[in-house]
Amino acid sequence: MPPTNPRTALEHLGLTLPPPPAPGGNYMSAKTAGNIVYLAGVISQTPDGIITGTLGLDRNIEEGYAAARSCALLQLAVLESHLGSLEKIRGIITVNGYVNSVPGFADSPKVINGASDLFLAIFGEPGRHVRAAIGVSGLPRHALVELQMTVEI
Amino acid sequence: MPPTNPRTALEHLGLTLPPPPAPGGNYMSAKTAGNIVYLAGVISQTPDGIITGTLGLDRNIEEGYAAARSCALLQLAVLESHLGSLEKIRGIITVNGYVNSVPGFADSPKVINGASDLFLAIFGEPGRHVRAAIGVSGLPRHALVELQMTVEI
Amino acid sequence: MPPTNPRTALEHLGLTLPPPPAPGGNYMSAKTAGNIVYLAGVISQTPDGIITGTLGLDRNIEEGYAAARSCALLQLAVLESHLGSLEKIRGIITVNGYVNSVPGFADSPKVINGASDLFLAIFGEPGRHVRAAIGVSGLPRHALVELQMTVEI
Repeated sequence: MPPTNPRTALEHLGLTLPPPPAPGGNYMSAKTAGNIVYLAGVISQTPDGIITGTLGLDRNIEEGYAAARSCALLQLAVLESHLGSLEKIRGIITVNGYVNSVPGFADSPKVINGASDLFLAIFGEPGRHVRAAIGVSGLPRHALVELQMTVEI
Repeated sequence: MPPTNPRTALEHLGLTLPPPPAPGGNYMSAKTAGNIVYLAGVISQTPDGIITGTLGLDRNIEEGYAAARSCALLQLAVLESHLGSLEKIRGIITVNGYVNSVPGFADSPKVINGASDLFLAIFGEPGRHVRAAIGVSGLPRHALVELQMTVEI
Repeated sequence: MPPTNPRTALEHLGLTLPPPPAPGGNYMSAKTAGNIVYLAGVISQTPDGIITGTLGLDRNIEEGYAAARSCALLQLAVLESHLGSLEKIRGIITVNGYVNSVPGFADSPKVINGASDLFLAIFGEPGRHVRAAIGVSGLPRHALVELQMTVEI
């Protein structure tokens, strides 16, 4: 399989990148050390606003999946802004997904697949990554999902 | 002290590695970038099934310790499968342990010691690592413990 | 802007570093791999004891901010002990802040700014980092904040 061109893959999926989100505190969105780009956590949002809510209370898995996917798109926007081009990415390394959820919520993997599936669709096999999916009791601005990651360039 | 051979150490402890667990979503178990192997989070389990439960509700610290140790064994299985041999490991760098627990649970370090103690027993001083132990409100498949880590090769 | 000397910056702020905290389990406080120093999570404390509590229950954002700042000072103490001098630090890369909080707590970024603001004051722009701020349901020893991070040397 030839390497996927991420911009072409985005177009084939009918996706456009949102503006990269401004950091929600006194930090930066991306920082490179050696061949690794470290990305700050981004919270789920669309151009219409934050995707808020709590899995198992007022949000279901399908909505969580869409929220995780929104985080992945935002991280791609951060990466394009930071690197100049998504083609500089050799692969996605780690994805940590935090799901705002009721106690005992056990399906965070199905939620975070919304990000993982997108990275595979955009980058092909180099987009496959290691991951942790965790249910937590509170995210910034009542967001439904937060996604933190590292990328190799 | 001469470097420990991890396979010999496992035998001395009477331990056998379980099969490496299949990823619980659209991701991979291990990915190398440079000299670092990044490992996906694994959830506590034995060949009999997932070790489920909630610390402070239906599980005690001893059970949590055993669950963290099961995660450590699973990560060793992942590493042996990924690297071909545990002898390629120069050291454990980071361990992040998440404990499914009631609000206010304060003893996650005692739980995650179940993993840390094993890494020291298997690798000697190079097995000593930095760590964070966090109480969370939900883990995949109702697991009691999840463990994510990085290793230097 | 000339690079900031971190010791001079500490003095200008009237700050002295506390003793580096002893690990609360079978692990180490700092470990270097390549150019990266990985730091274990430290919990909020002063020489008088652990800063405990729960955001949204018995602690407010101002108290959380001070707790995060105490974690940052402790990590600087760990780094000085590990490296010999803070001048070996080229920059802060990642900061993960965990806030012990009630379900639905949405202001962890305002809390973790207590650490981020200090790193900027001490190191200038190289102190700016990527970050995730997460509300969790339990931290070691009932601590209010835990801070885990990586640094480039």
